[in-house]
Amino acid sequence: MHKLATLLFLFFSHFAFTQASDSLVIKKIADSVLTSGKAYDHLRILCKTVGARLAGSAQTYKAEQWGVKTLKEAGADSVFLQQCMVPRWVRGGKDEASISYQDKKRKQQKKILDVLALGNSEGSGSSGVRAPVILIENFEALEKRKDEVKGKIVFYNHAFNPTYILQGKAYGEAGVYRRSGPSRAAKYGAVAVVIRSLSQSTNNFPHTGSTAYEPDVPRIPCAALGLQDADFLAQLLKEKTDVQLYLKTRGHFLPDTIAHNVIGELKGAVFPERYITVGGHLDSWDVGEGAHDDGAGCVQSIEVLRVLKAIGYKPRHTIRVVLFANEENGLRGATKYAEEAKRKNEKHTFALESDAGGFTPRGFAFTASRDFLEKLNAYLPLFIPYGVYEFRDGGGGADVGPLNSTMGVPVAGLSPDSQRYFDVHHARNDIFENVHKRELELGALNMAALVYIVDKYGL
Amino acid sequence: MHKLATLLFLFFSHFAFTQASDSLVIKKIADSVLTSGKAYDHLRILCKTVGARLAGSAQTYKAEQWGVKTLKEAGADSVFLQQCMVPRWVRGGKDEASISYQDKKRKQQKKILDVLALGNSEGSGSSGVRAPVILIENFEALEKRKDEVKGKIVFYNHAFNPTYILQGKAYGEAGVYRRSGPSRAAKYGAVAVVIRSLSQSTNNFPHTGSTAYEPDVPRIPCAALGLQDADFLAQLLKEKTDVQLYLKTRGHFLPDTIAHNVIGELKGAVFPERYITVGGHLDSWDVGEGAHDDGAGCVQSIEVLRVLKAIGYKPRHTIRVVLFANEENGLRGATKYAEEAKRKNEKHTFALESDAGGFTPRGFAFTASRDFLEKLNAYLPLFIPYGVYEFRDGGGGADVGPLNSTMGVPVAGLSPDSQRYFDVHHARNDIFENVHKRELELGALNMAALVYIVDKYGL
Repeated sequence: MHKLATLLFLFFSHFAFTQASDSLVIKKIADSVLTSGKAYDHLRILCKTVGARLAGSAQTYKAEQWGVKTLKEAGADSVFLQQCMVPRWVRGGKDEASISYQDKKRKQQKKILDVLALGNSEGSGSSGVRAPVILIENFEALEKRKDEVKGKIVFYNHAFNPTYILQGKAYGEAGVYRRSGPSRAAKYGAVAVVIRSLSQSTNNFPHTGSTAYEPDVPRIPCAALGLQDADFLAQLLKEKTDVQLYLKTRGHFLPDTIAHNVIGELKGAVFPERYITVGGHLDSWDVGEGAHDDGAGCVQSIEVLRVLKAIGYKPRHTIRVVLFANEENGLRGATKYAEEAKRKNEKHTFALESDAGGFTPRGFAFTASRDFLEKLNAYLPLFIPYGVYEFRDGGGGADVGPLNSTMGVPVAGLSPDSQRYFDVHHARNDIFENVHKRELELGALNMAALVYIVDKYGL
Repeated sequence: MHKLATLLFLFFSHFAFTQASDSLVIKKIADSVLTSGKAYDHLRILCKTVGARLAGSAQTYKAEQWGVKTLKEAGADSVFLQQCMVPRWVRGGKDEASISYQDKKRKQQKKILDVLALGNSEGSGSSGVRAPVILIENFEALEKRKDEVKGKIVFYNHAFNPTYILQGKAYGEAGVYRRSGPSRAAKYGAVAVVIRSLSQSTNNFPHTGSTAYEPDVPRIPCAALGLQDADFLAQLLKEKTDVQLYLKTRGHFLPDTIAHNVIGELKGAVFPERYITVGGHLDSWDVGEGAHDDGAGCVQSIEVLRVLKAIGYKPRHTIRVVLFANEENGLRGATKYAEEAKRKNEKHTFALESDAGGFTPRGFAFTASRDFLEKLNAYLPLFIPYGVYEFRDGGGGADVGPLNSTMGVPVAGLSPDSQRYFDVHHARNDIFENVHKRELELGALNMAALVYIVDKYGL
């Protein structure tokens, strides 16, 4: 142990010495963000004057205007829009659900459930669907009981695994029931699907999010239940109670429409034709205010630009802040951005995203070469004072993904503390009031520090 | 870099191998806490059936009964009360404050301020105090302007330093104005003091907490303002507006009374006469529900006992869960506990406390020998999967402090993420609803893991 301690000490001392100037720049970044940062105010304005902004909705264009104005005010050398076509799914009205069942005294009961139709789903038709419910915990159970499914409403009650420390892992596992569950049940004749919301919260807000129908399978209506309602319904079904569920949803697609990635640049002083992208997605689901998902990522990315400019840093590469269109139900903005980058043969040095909530940062997660990560890890000690302890291998984010997959660009995502994200994710309570000013700022300042290091050292 | 990486790899591999069984035990601890833990339910009962529980209040005894019952249910081999005398400060009714001033149109205005008298302070008398306000940012300014203070109400508007990443550091610096501010102003003839609450939140809840009068100085009334009110008042005074402040408080002491430390033990199988203490404080301020401060620490400590018992671990040392009396305005419980330990010549191997909120843990902070910390650091890799990245030198907590200072016991405190603690600390919004189930549990499971490691290896 003594040898290791000594080595670590020498190691950190060495960097404390050679990286003293980096440490001072990062302190300047941090002080500016924490004392005169604009991220929180920007988020308030986005949430309270634009609000929910599903791709193609009227709010899309208000949000784009907000983005252009805010990037200009933050000090961008230029701001432009990159056009793309986006799907336009609409909820079409309030989703309705209720169950009727006999209680233990054989008295007929009815209970209203709090539901949200899944994004991209088809509505139930004007008279809704009414059918008996079958409780299915997972796809294995579905296969076993496939003959019982016909004419019924399948209720997938797959809970988050509470033993996973990182909530993203639980979301990844449970997420297949939202994405593939409806079509898999429809294949066996189910008339609708309800799922346990992809959350582990103690409240009852239902959480929407995209589903994906398979071709040649009936596009049955589907919705997410709040967790308390899901527990109640599961309990009834475990007691072998006959339960009829009524579900009425009105979701449908309008024709694809135009939207834009909003892009602001700080021109590079040394390599103006090499890019470092930092972004979040400007669209959100149609409930709540898209505060954590992903207003936070947008305002943090804008803050990176603001603070680098404010402290007088002249970036070597061109820093591009990208507010991506349509992450939630199509990824058309990110796809377009990577396509254009490839078409123009742009050199992209690095792309960073924030799309896991505006909570206290704990690290960054990378999809990058071993060499990139090893070089970067030498700078980790600079981040530890600001709460970032880890540059993890494996990760990134949906919007920087296409840059990596099509052009091999090293990408990363901010990893904030994950415990609270799925309490608000895609739900009505994803509102400004649930974002913490300093936590949001700590994310932004660490993002700016990372962009600074990659910009300075190229890696 | 390569050499270090290799060494680190070998180091972690080595421990991954030799500590495989520890890793399995800690996984068992974690799984139990996260799937069938009781901390959150226990906290709900404490907050909702007992509520606020300032030392000596009627709720003190309800809380003690809750502690005895809960420790027994958690599986303690024995539960007992350790008596101590505690001060009994009472607020005496609603605190009142308002300001009157002329606005820019020379129209007389009045504004009600949200205030809480500081703990241990004397009331203003039945007619209250009315006087002009003088804005004082810090003690240096007080000394410079001491001749202007007579007959006035001093308003200390010392803000948290926003550039500190750890909020505890900002609290430590600003805290002197709450503790020493009233007497220092009274020396120069001030008739009352109001302070900017010790917080950095975006809301307006005032935050109480102990003040300490010096002997032979008038015990002037004093209270904390919410931050929005503090900003408003400071702005008026910076504009040179004449402001009259009215303050009416009713605080006073009743005679000291009896309270108890509530202690539950798991008997040690090898060293029954050597103790590992783990605790929080059972008292709270008289507003809110003492949820984070320090119901969280109490239920986490009880959870340590519960989970060790539940997984069938036989501790070598006697594990003592201590719910300390009167941390907030006297520290009489902790003082008594250390006195008794010393009087009985008990051997205390380690004492751990949780009193920084039930938020996601990031580390532990120690006051211990270099040798203890070096040995313990070898086990840090076991904690990293559960979000604890750091065993920091320097720290501990108020209630384990006397064990360290009188007997040299190594002590530690859980270090949760600090960003939100002072949003609720000593305020009306320190309620159960502001505690996150999984964050609370992550703290508890890391505490149990630390107790397990110290118990097993002695250190």
